[in-house]
Amino acid sequence: MNIELITTGGTIDKVYNPLNGELTFGESNVPEIIKRARVTANIHITPLMAIDSLQMTDEHRNQILMHCQSSDTDRLVITHGTDTMTDTAKVLASANLVKTIVLTGAMIPFSIQHSDALFNLGAAITSAQLLEPGIYIAMNGKVFNALETEKNRQQGIFETN
Amino acid sequence: MNIELITTGGTIDKVYNPLNGELTFGESNVPEIIKRARVTANIHITPLMAIDSLQMTDEHRNQILMHCQSSDTDRLVITHGTDTMTDTAKVLASANLVKTIVLTGAMIPFSIQHSDALFNLGAAITSAQLLEPGIYIAMNGKVFNALETEKNRQQGIFETN
Amino acid sequence: MNIELITTGGTIDKVYNPLNGELTFGESNVPEIIKRARVTANIHITPLMAIDSLQMTDEHRNQILMHCQSSDTDRLVITHGTDTMTDTAKVLASANLVKTIVLTGAMIPFSIQHSDALFNLGAAITSAQLLEPGIYIAMNGKVFNALETEKNRQQGIFETN
Amino acid sequence: MNIELITTGGTIDKVYNPLNGELTFGESNVPEIIKRARVTANIHITPLMAIDSLQMTDEHRNQILMHCQSSDTDRLVITHGTDTMTDTAKVLASANLVKTIVLTGAMIPFSIQHSDALFNLGAAITSAQLLEPGIYIAMNGKVFNALETEKNRQQGIFETN
Repeated sequence: MNIELITTGGTIDKVYNPLNGELTFGESNVPEIIKRARVTANIHITPLMAIDSLQMTDEHRNQILMHCQSSDTDRLVITHGTDTMTDTAKVLASANLVKTIVLTGAMIPFSIQHSDALFNLGAAITSAQLLEPGIYIAMNGKVFNALETEKNRQQGIFETN
Repeated sequence: MNIELITTGGTIDKVYNPLNGELTFGESNVPEIIKRARVTANIHITPLMAIDSLQMTDEHRNQILMHCQSSDTDRLVITHGTDTMTDTAKVLASANLVKTIVLTGAMIPFSIQHSDALFNLGAAITSAQLLEPGIYIAMNGKVFNALETEKNRQQGIFETN
Repeated sequence: MNIELITTGGTIDKVYNPLNGELTFGESNVPEIIKRARVTANIHITPLMAIDSLQMTDEHRNQILMHCQSSDTDRLVITHGTDTMTDTAKVLASANLVKTIVLTGAMIPFSIQHSDALFNLGAAITSAQLLEPGIYIAMNGKVFNALETEKNRQQGIFETN
Repeated sequence: MNIELITTGGTIDKVYNPLNGELTFGESNVPEIIKRARVTANIHITPLMAIDSLQMTDEHRNQILMHCQSSDTDRLVITHGTDTMTDTAKVLASANLVKTIVLTGAMIPFSIQHSDALFNLGAAITSAQLLEPGIYIAMNGKVFNALETEKNRQQGIFETN
């Protein structure tokens, strides 16, 4: 069972730039997480883009969709900013791919104390192996049908809508 | 969907005792992990024991089995030392419970740099919600049928046997 | 020997706000550092302000100066943003206090991976006990006379000017 | 001003071996600490040995002494296990070197949550630049004359004796 793991940026991948004091993107943290978790599942990591999901345009979402379509695997995980994760999920859902696609991310970057990145990626990678084709979001220890959830920004959690 | 999360000790829960320089057990780290992951799934944590799995006796395994049997949920996660995780899994499997039970643990304690604890617990909690009744082990980014895996101690990974 | 440790904010104390994705100030991290280092030196912590040093005005610097003047100790440590640390040092130096005052901070917040906060605070607290009256900056494993150093922003280090 | 930093092992340098679950020694953590602290002081690191200080024999201590004597610097920092740090200090003191030597270590390894390693090394490296010749111990936010302190093992702190 092959899994493709696409990184798109988002909070999970933000790192601190000590020279200007800003959170930014460098190399994705995801390969380090996979290594740390001693993952033996057959995962191929594709760093597709590295942007804040609030900056994500229709074009970016189409790029993600096209990558999922052309991927030679039918099980994909996408790391993504939480703010527009459901928007990208809707674009993916509209294409009716017969693939299992699980989006995940983090409320706190991997590089910052108390991050939820490892937990969420563990949830997403496992879900991608167990679920029927569809578009899902793995966050908060749950797996949501991506069309039936939204982020509650006041509380910083995903809820069934 | 209710999940009971039973902690039994194992590497995942070891903490450093600065007074004697040894790794030992204190309060379980699992509640901190659940909090950090902002889990909204309905999880009840039961600290059943706190021992190294190499110290685990038949009596301990029976205690775990009885707890699973009497639990009012049919979805359970058990944190457990990796060295005898499959032994406990076999005891649980022998009872033919109609419950989904996922065992997990860590190769590096939660309290130590580069731990896989968060990832594995994310995998286990998610798997417990998605899988049919049975006994499973969630480690290394995979979910194993617990009767079909064993720990490769030289490499520190679980493999299909 | 009593030491007063004044916190003013700066990078050392920045924490991540998961709800808006920004680095901000909450409770100071300094008491946690002191506890972690098992400090038995007699240190009194005063959280005076919590601001980015680029936002620090003459009024803020005067507030710091007045606090140092009126402090009943003659050994003080000030945690401060690095960008204008030398500006505050000059204000303190102009008052000709007969006190040992050591400013320090961090290039990476205590709450973020690979932080230098603990190292720098260890350096500053120790220096404040060993140095003659004067205004000093403890950064990069050195103790500078505060009037003879400036921050090299391109490299993110303090240098003798 | 040149500083030689000698590593001898001790708690500060212990790392977890995931294959046997024991704390052991690998590469010293000290170079990583120096890098993280963006140290620009002129420090030369010498990994002399890597042992638990309870295993340290007279021969080991003589080796440390001889290294200090023959070092071409007169300012040295030694990372060392806390349990017999004062014993090594006494051997060094007996040689009446005209050098400033500061011993330090940690109650919790650098590799484990809540470590005091960075703080203590910041204190020791700074002290070594400020103090007159003598043998010192930098721990708990204090600098002790090494002949006037002992470790209180019940409390895990150094005290004046």
